Amino acid sequence: MRTLRLTIAYEGTEFRGWQRQPGVPTVQGMLIEACERVLGAPVKLVGASRTDAGVHALRQVASLRTDSAIADAALGRALNALLPPSIRVLEVRAAPADFDARRSARGKRYAYVIDRGSWADPFLRRFAWHLPKPLDEAAMAAGCQLIRGKHDFSAFCAAPGRGRSPVCTVRAARVVTARRRLVFLFSADSFLHHMVRNLVGTLVEIGRGAAAPQWVSELLAGRDRTLAGPTAPAHGLSLVRVLYDGADR
Amino acid sequence: MRTLRLTIAYEGTEFRGWQRQPGVPTVQGMLIEACERVLGAPVKLVGASRTDAGVHALRQVASLRTDSAIADAALGRALNALLPPSIRVLEVRAAPADFDARRSARGKRYAYVIDRGSWADPFLRRFAWHLPKPLDEAAMAAGCQLIRGKHDFSAFCAAPGRGRSPVCTVRAARVVTARRRLVFLFSADSFLHHMVRNLVGTLVEIGRGAAAPQWVSELLAGRDRTLAGPTAPAHGLSLVRVLYDGADR
Repeated sequence: MRTLRLTIAYEGTEFRGWQRQPGVPTVQGMLIEACERVLGAPVKLVGASRTDAGVHALRQVASLRTDSAIADAALGRALNALLPPSIRVLEVRAAPADFDARRSARGKRYAYVIDRGSWADPFLRRFAWHLPKPLDEAAMAAGCQLIRGKHDFSAFCAAPGRGRSPVCTVRAARVVTARRRLVFLFSADSFLHHMVRNLVGTLVEIGRGAAAPQWVSELLAGRDRTLAGPTAPAHGLSLVRVLYDGADR
Repeated sequence: MRTLRLTIAYEGTEFRGWQRQPGVPTVQGMLIEACERVLGAPVKLVGASRTDAGVHALRQVASLRTDSAIADAALGRALNALLPPSIRVLEVRAAPADFDARRSARGKRYAYVIDRGSWADPFLRRFAWHLPKPLDEAAMAAGCQLIRGKHDFSAFCAAPGRGRSPVCTVRAARVVTARRRLVFLFSADSFLHHMVRNLVGTLVEIGRGAAAPQWVSELLAGRDRTLAGPTAPAHGLSLVRVLYDGADR
């Protein structure tokens, strides 16, 4: 039995998210179907991040175990021949026997893109939230500063209390601009359900001047989801990278 | 009667090209329909470039004449409210009475994008031709050099002899690379039907080593379309800009 690690890119537009569900197209569902056809046996595929419907991934990581002797590169090519062009397997490689894409992950990076042009760029429309109103970058940067560090993020979690800790350590939270794009970058040891989209919704309220940056600290302390900003739309979000350490890197 | 100039961006993926045709979605068809609804009268809309099915535009230019007194910015907003998100009107402004987007044009710029990654990037797949084989950039640059200048481009024209001169002056032809992208840039006073795609198909043959750069000069001199390289796929091509002079700029 070998453990394999797959690195995968996808445009999430046409999928109902990562997680396999009967009767609807999902990224995990497409991958399992392709793996089972190539490997000729049932496959359990674990993904590092269960991205929502419409969310994209530049480098998602998944793991599986197989008895097949197929060469790694040949498996990658065979999967890409079966998968739709919106999903690409970038790399297949051997991993330590106990490697699990989700449990072994030490952190993740996400990017959230806003198109701040006066008209919505047709080339960005699947990958960016169009917000033509002025946003105060300095205020949003100050809000990002307050997100960093170890906090209880219950106020930014869609479904808290599902048996996991609401405490996350955010290593990086910043805002950068490139022409019409404004991009939020987040790196943390873990993320709660909808956490990035809820943080972005709150930072945009701050950018609009509806609240001061200090609001972030108040929300973190209050731990009440109903008080934070709205959930930013899914299509602006991309999983950028999954971080591992040591032998799994 | 006022003459208006519209600047338009579109992703061509879902359209059967620019030119209006009954019963199929085209960019000109969508624009005429939206203009007629807003202006309340039949509209004749002239586009600078009749882009093929699947070709994109960053700044297409179109002209129309109207009796309506609607403000330019209000017309732009109204059109964008009616158009699909794959077509955006970037600007509407008054033009000299005799301005005609096609006849007044003094030149155009096109870009052709190749994705040379080993796997086809899902985020580039609508905008780039995926060619994972190695391409000799220096040879293609030498081929570009021979394209520049005033030549009879019959060898690169899909349908020559339709009453217009096959002689074009190419002011710029070059190849640039940015990570996985290889981009051909062309600027000329005019372009024949399929000319950019035929030039790219020929340059790629040179890049693959199937022919020497000098082949470009032989093809230009021979004026025989059947001897040149294949037509590169439409979806890698974008109209970048239409050039005007003087009062029309």
